[in-house]
Amino acid sequence: MPTNQAGHSDFDVELANNKKVVDAMLERLLAEQKQIEPNIMQAMRYTLEGPGKRIRAAMLLWCCRAVSGTINENAKIAAAAVEMVHTYSLIHDDLPAMDNDDMRRGKPTCHKKFDEATAILAGDALLTFAFEVLSERINNPAAAVALIGELAAAAGPAGMIAGQMADLRSQKKKGNRELLEYIHTNKTAKMFHAAAAMGAICGDADRRQYESLGEYGLKIGLCFQITDDILDVCSSSEQLGKTAGKDTKADKVTYPAVIGLEKSREIVRELAQQAIDELQSFGQEAVFLRQLAMELLDRKK
Amino acid sequence: MPTNQAGHSDFDVELANNKKVVDAMLERLLAEQKQIEPNIMQAMRYTLEGPGKRIRAAMLLWCCRAVSGTINENAKIAAAAVEMVHTYSLIHDDLPAMDNDDMRRGKPTCHKKFDEATAILAGDALLTFAFEVLSERINNPAAAVALIGELAAAAGPAGMIAGQMADLRSQKKKGNRELLEYIHTNKTAKMFHAAAAMGAICGDADRRQYESLGEYGLKIGLCFQITDDILDVCSSSEQLGKTAGKDTKADKVTYPAVIGLEKSREIVRELAQQAIDELQSFGQEAVFLRQLAMELLDRKK
Repeated sequence: MPTNQAGHSDFDVELANNKKVVDAMLERLLAEQKQIEPNIMQAMRYTLEGPGKRIRAAMLLWCCRAVSGTINENAKIAAAAVEMVHTYSLIHDDLPAMDNDDMRRGKPTCHKKFDEATAILAGDALLTFAFEVLSERINNPAAAVALIGELAAAAGPAGMIAGQMADLRSQKKKGNRELLEYIHTNKTAKMFHAAAAMGAICGDADRRQYESLGEYGLKIGLCFQITDDILDVCSSSEQLGKTAGKDTKADKVTYPAVIGLEKSREIVRELAQQAIDELQSFGQEAVFLRQLAMELLDRKK
Repeated sequence: MPTNQAGHSDFDVELANNKKVVDAMLERLLAEQKQIEPNIMQAMRYTLEGPGKRIRAAMLLWCCRAVSGTINENAKIAAAAVEMVHTYSLIHDDLPAMDNDDMRRGKPTCHKKFDEATAILAGDALLTFAFEVLSERINNPAAAVALIGELAAAAGPAGMIAGQMADLRSQKKKGNRELLEYIHTNKTAKMFHAAAAMGAICGDADRRQYESLGEYGLKIGLCFQITDDILDVCSSSEQLGKTAGKDTKADKVTYPAVIGLEKSREIVRELAQQAIDELQSFGQEAVFLRQLAMELLDRKK
């Protein structure tokens, strides 16, 4: 990985720049909706801020650039919407009735900082507001509808919510690989797929580009979730910014638990390569998408 | 009110017919999304079914007819989406951390029937699925975007969620009329406004029709919520199908508590008349919209 004079790789600098772009858009979208109730606004801002790397948003922006050579305004709005939906899912997932977690992104979870009612409503607010901004801000109705469709399908009861439900229920029974793939595909990978597909839509991709990038996103999402499972076994809470060892403690179905650590690492390598293979028709403009796949092999948190 | 041979008014028959139309559409939309996780599907169906009158949906269908003379497929889909969002709001509102209610529509609330995690996820699922069906099923992208925008803005942090947050916090302090209007407008009336506006959009309304019907919806929504407050004081749980006297018990800000029962009834009459006045430019095709306003004056549950 090439590094610059300050010792950061180009990839890290690019990722940090994209985070700034998305954070600025999130702040602008919140600030411009003047009628948001102040307590809800405070909880929305609290949970959106933090040290998160905005991987899903970055992937969306890079997919737009891979197709069109540039990162346009629609892509920035769509990236903000994806991060709102991702953040909503974390808030609700952390609730006492769900995963019951006290730490997230290195600080108290929303229901710990405020209270449960505020956390439920702040999650609902972020989910709804994501669709509000996509419907109001995207400069072309056909693109807006396509973006909303991708996001809603990935986040809905045949996507992320299906994965969360299966994940919660998996705590009480012995998992197998089929269940594991169902959970990871639905809970995580479909949102990565949606982020990539949304970037393709913003870049005005043709059908073939749209499909390749969607497949790339799906593979990266699975890869990301399996490394998450691995890190839960191998890292400290301090490194992760959330409670480590939690999955094992909750007797959750994870890749290391079901197929072992070494085999899990092998699958991560295979998926990263498959993701890179999906980018064959793209040139230099897909460099960061390729690097993202490589980075996941070396993920520390 | 004219009654037919079976002793039911034309209005009641029309309302029951519209409920059948919307229930059939809800069932079709759920059945056609084959990938919904089975436990989530069960909770979605459980909460969507029940003796609810589907007032918001009926208003949407009638507004479409007032403008276009007919109830088209887009209006049926939009009406189903509105009922999904309304039902989600009830599920989350009933949660222990929120209003903590055990009965809804005459049966156990979602978290009582299943568990809290399922109720949180089923609510999330209905909210997300509403946007999924609007993005996928409406046959014209500009109309789809407009419908999604209306629904998201009304349900979001500058609408229903703002009202719920203010309502929850109002339990702990003395309310005044300004706060009361803020809560009722945001928590209830904006969704009625959205339903009416969405009906107008489905009927391809001109700007003036769209605005009149939106105002009609807003007035009806306020009228509906104040009668709800009045019924909470004056009816039994059996009549309501939910716990009666709950608002008073929770020391909530309600119209009867803040301005008294008689003055509340007077405001209901004024709002109903104002709603009817908004329909002046419509003829016979708006008959049920006018009757709805009259019915609210005589609401028993």
